[in-house]
Amino acid sequence: MRNLLAGLPSDLEDEVFEPILEAEHVRIERIVSKGHTSPQKGWYDQQEHEWVVVLEGAGTVLFEQGPEVHLEEGDHLTIPAHSRHRVSWTDPERVTVWLAVFYL
Amino acid sequence: MRNLLAGLPSDLEDEVFEPILEAEHVRIERIVSKGHTSPQKGWYDQQEHEWVVVLEGAGTVLFEQGPEVHLEEGDHLTIPAHSRHRVSWTDPERVTVWLAVFYL
Repeated sequence: MRNLLAGLPSDLEDEVFEPILEAEHVRIERIVSKGHTSPQKGWYDQQEHEWVVVLEGAGTVLFEQGPEVHLEEGDHLTIPAHSRHRVSWTDPERVTVWLAVFYL
Repeated sequence: MRNLLAGLPSDLEDEVFEPILEAEHVRIERIVSKGHTSPQKGWYDQQEHEWVVVLEGAGTVLFEQGPEVHLEEGDHLTIPAHSRHRVSWTDPERVTVWLAVFYL
C-alpha cells in the first residue's frame, strides 16, 4: 500500500487491520473502521505501547480507568502497554483511517 | 501538540522539527516544511531507519543511489539507516506536514 488514504477496503463488515511496517521493536498498522467498536467484548490489554493518530474520520477511545478520548483528523494519543482500553465509537457515516505505531 | 495538523509554526524561515514521542527504540517527529530542501548541503546519513508519511502538502525525497520519490498526502516511504538521501523539493505554495517514525 503506497498511500495510506487510498485503496481502502470495500468490505468493511469487520474492521480491517493492515500491516504497513514490521521491525524488531516497532510495527505500524493501518486500521480502517466504519461505525465499529472494538474489541467486541472486553478490553484491549496490549504487551506493546501504542501511539495512534486519526488520518481521516473520527473515533473515541475509552480507557477502563477513564478518560474517554475523542479523536478527529490529526488528533493523536499514546496508549501505554497494559492500559486497558477499547474503541467505544467510530463514525458510522464515513470511513475512519487510523495509523497505529506499536512499540516496545 | 494534541493535533498534528493544528498549531503549525508561523515562522517557517527554517524547516521546523518537533518531537511527538520519544521511547527507547522509536521516536516520532512532526516536520513542517514550506519550499525547503534539506539538508542544506550534502545528504542525510542516519543511524536510525525512518518511516515517513506526508500528512499534508507534497515533497520529494532523492536518494544518492536513486530513485527520486515524490510524495503527496497519504504517501509513505521507508528510508533504511545509512541510505543517503535528501529532501530535494517541498511545495513552496503551501505547508507540507511530514510525520516521521525513526526506529532502530
